[in-house]
Amino acid sequence: MSLEALRAELTGLELRDDDATRATYGHDESDQGDFRPELVVFPKDTAEVQRVVRACNRHRVPLTPVAARTGKSGGSLPIHGGVSLSLERMNQILAIRPEDLTATVQPGVVLADFQRAVEAVGLFYPPDPNSAPTCSLGGNIAENAGGPSALKYGVTRDYVLGLEWVLPDGELVRVGRQTVKGVAGYDLVGLFVGSEGTLGIATEITVKLLPRPPVVMTALIAFTDVLAAARAVNAVLLGGLLPRCLELLDDVALAAVAGKGVPFPAGAGAVIIAEIDGTTEEGVFAELNLLASIASKHGGLDAQIAVDRDQRERLWATRRLVSPALRELQKYKFSEDIVVPRSKVPEAIERFKAIGQALGLTVATYGHAGDGNLHTNVLYRSPADRPRVELALEQLMKETVRLGGTLSGEHGIGIAKKKYLSLEQSDQLIALQRRLKVLFDPFGLLNPGKVFPDESKEQ
Amino acid sequence: MSLEALRAELTGLELRDDDATRATYGHDESDQGDFRPELVVFPKDTAEVQRVVRACNRHRVPLTPVAARTGKSGGSLPIHGGVSLSLERMNQILAIRPEDLTATVQPGVVLADFQRAVEAVGLFYPPDPNSAPTCSLGGNIAENAGGPSALKYGVTRDYVLGLEWVLPDGELVRVGRQTVKGVAGYDLVGLFVGSEGTLGIATEITVKLLPRPPVVMTALIAFTDVLAAARAVNAVLLGGLLPRCLELLDDVALAAVAGKGVPFPAGAGAVIIAEIDGTTEEGVFAELNLLASIASKHGGLDAQIAVDRDQRERLWATRRLVSPALRELQKYKFSEDIVVPRSKVPEAIERFKAIGQALGLTVATYGHAGDGNLHTNVLYRSPADRPRVELALEQLMKETVRLGGTLSGEHGIGIAKKKYLSLEQSDQLIALQRRLKVLFDPFGLLNPGKVFPDESKEQ
Repeated sequence: MSLEALRAELTGLELRDDDATRATYGHDESDQGDFRPELVVFPKDTAEVQRVVRACNRHRVPLTPVAARTGKSGGSLPIHGGVSLSLERMNQILAIRPEDLTATVQPGVVLADFQRAVEAVGLFYPPDPNSAPTCSLGGNIAENAGGPSALKYGVTRDYVLGLEWVLPDGELVRVGRQTVKGVAGYDLVGLFVGSEGTLGIATEITVKLLPRPPVVMTALIAFTDVLAAARAVNAVLLGGLLPRCLELLDDVALAAVAGKGVPFPAGAGAVIIAEIDGTTEEGVFAELNLLASIASKHGGLDAQIAVDRDQRERLWATRRLVSPALRELQKYKFSEDIVVPRSKVPEAIERFKAIGQALGLTVATYGHAGDGNLHTNVLYRSPADRPRVELALEQLMKETVRLGGTLSGEHGIGIAKKKYLSLEQSDQLIALQRRLKVLFDPFGLLNPGKVFPDESKEQ
Repeated sequence: MSLEALRAELTGLELRDDDATRATYGHDESDQGDFRPELVVFPKDTAEVQRVVRACNRHRVPLTPVAARTGKSGGSLPIHGGVSLSLERMNQILAIRPEDLTATVQPGVVLADFQRAVEAVGLFYPPDPNSAPTCSLGGNIAENAGGPSALKYGVTRDYVLGLEWVLPDGELVRVGRQTVKGVAGYDLVGLFVGSEGTLGIATEITVKLLPRPPVVMTALIAFTDVLAAARAVNAVLLGGLLPRCLELLDDVALAAVAGKGVPFPAGAGAVIIAEIDGTTEEGVFAELNLLASIASKHGGLDAQIAVDRDQRERLWATRRLVSPALRELQKYKFSEDIVVPRSKVPEAIERFKAIGQALGLTVATYGHAGDGNLHTNVLYRSPADRPRVELALEQLMKETVRLGGTLSGEHGIGIAKKKYLSLEQSDQLIALQRRLKVLFDPFGLLNPGKVFPDESKEQ
């Protein structure tokens, strides 16, 4: 590769290659390591993105798109060096159209900013990853981000109607549509969302919005143990309710946040946080009561109900404390993102704990139990424990697949899980996806080394 | 092609080539003409589907998948002859898993049978095309079928989690997952759903189910004219409500069903049918009252509210009468399926009527106004009017695209609209999709001649 020739072609664009910038773009929130780009480019519009992509093609320089670097699977790390293409300068909300219930944004828009802007006009954009205050819409598209409210409202892909998309050769296509429905041609939006920056770069994103549900209420319900809580989650869904969120925290997670958030009743070994939204106070309150009574029949000890914003915020603050509090427990942790069929959640939690015990490791499980998406954390005290942790993670992935599950619910495969993909997908299916990648990116320059297992010839 | 050699390879499979069978499989509900296959094959399992696909590949025989023949765009018509592969014998519901909120079916299962089976265990599969009593799940997957409740619940694609899929070369892959969430690898389910039988054949389909909302109420609200009704639809959505359905019937549609269904108040020039579902009677009734009061402020004359199944059924029977009643008005009709951004629905209805008037044709508009998906019908009295009708349809498509819309909301492109696809999609986007088709089907044997415009070399 010839970085000097490339640089000469990009005159007029904002380029940086100082050590601090390269260090910044060399890591993300995946803890996958330090992979510094040689050059970081900050295009300010679609035409500049196309220029960068074309120049990298001509000079055969690897190119990795990046925005907020909040990814959990290493998707934005330039593991083969080359150029990091930051979408951070393209951060405009281009249009919010209340009368159409749609909006169009640039990829660098921060999710929470966008959520606030649509809520200000009475609308609602449901995807809500924990990183909302800092993550970008472009990254959400790349990873198909979810969040607690995916239970009722689905994930990012369910909201993306149309994309302006720079292909790996630098050509621009508009795929999808501006309408809420449409079936003309192949669903390339479906293919591109979640492609982890390997099939192209979103430069403009049109999403569907919903009317904002005016009433939201939240309940925190304690149980003696996590299996009872997990069974209660299933009972709620079988009882005909579809809450916005059904989150679960196990005993390790509770112990980690004890004394830091809302108080739990004596004997609590797990909690669920359930949230219901709707149009009328009466309707939502009736549903929340029905939920609490189902939980009570399945071992629920105590329900704290939050009906206003401050009370709700206290419950959610406790939920958000879990991840940092677990890290405090043992200094290091690895956070997984597996999904199992809902009925297998209790068994999965038991098996994951047993895997940890057999290896002398503490395993905590919390997350989106309502849709079977569990953030199972393996805690450890020192880097010397890492081989045992790796063993635990591999066993955890195998157990997930054995239970009919999938490796990742919302974080993506990236580099963190590519070595496990063959546990879940057949060689033939992986080969088919590689052929798709080659069709779009014959030189393999766009976000290389991601998603698929390393091939032996690459090693 | 060598049909005799092919037949010899398919010993043991159910084959038919009698005139009656060939005539039956030569047409569907699209009124696109008579295109008879030379042979119809009825495989009874996945292995037999693979045998047929491989044999057709070896002998270079065109192959068209078909099931219930209820399609509206000609997707199942074997326009290049060859073999029709019927999925009708593969009609088993393989599993309904209430505890997972998922089900697995074969492609020949009739939608209404499946809906009844899941409702019997308290669950809900929302996609509801009008053809539900006869259409098949396989066809729903091929066309990405919608229906009135798409407004709140989305379309078929939103429910498909995993597919067992026979590729155009006869290889079998399992794509997607059994869990409600998952982002491992490219979203091939997204690519395959709605690919209109051109990228492969679903032989097993795993879908997501929902808890069945126990309370459903419906309102029929009359307006003096269709523009007021269309504006009221937008006002309802901006008012923070998300009904299950928001259907609209214009004056021509009303005149067609006058005296046949529920009575309309004097002066009614349009109606909307709104349906709201939820968990409690109080909550749903409160929302329906809010909806009626918003409609009233926007010119609603009168609201008939149906709270039990019989009353609701009477309102929906009137809606279902529209299509046959319009055909009675003038004997022939062409039914379109365009979608425009919601705010453009009033303008679209006006423009479509004007197009009809300028050409001396009656145009009726009804359909899923809540999501902008309009079934605009061009009525005519004799085949001699057909050239004018074609002109009207072309103008209608151009106007739809000008308004930011799409050619098809739920019927697909098939052969009915392929000549218009270039109005909506760039040459480059169509070329990209053709390259995808070639990657999957290098000989162009699977459902040839569909979706994309004929290339000059083919003419």
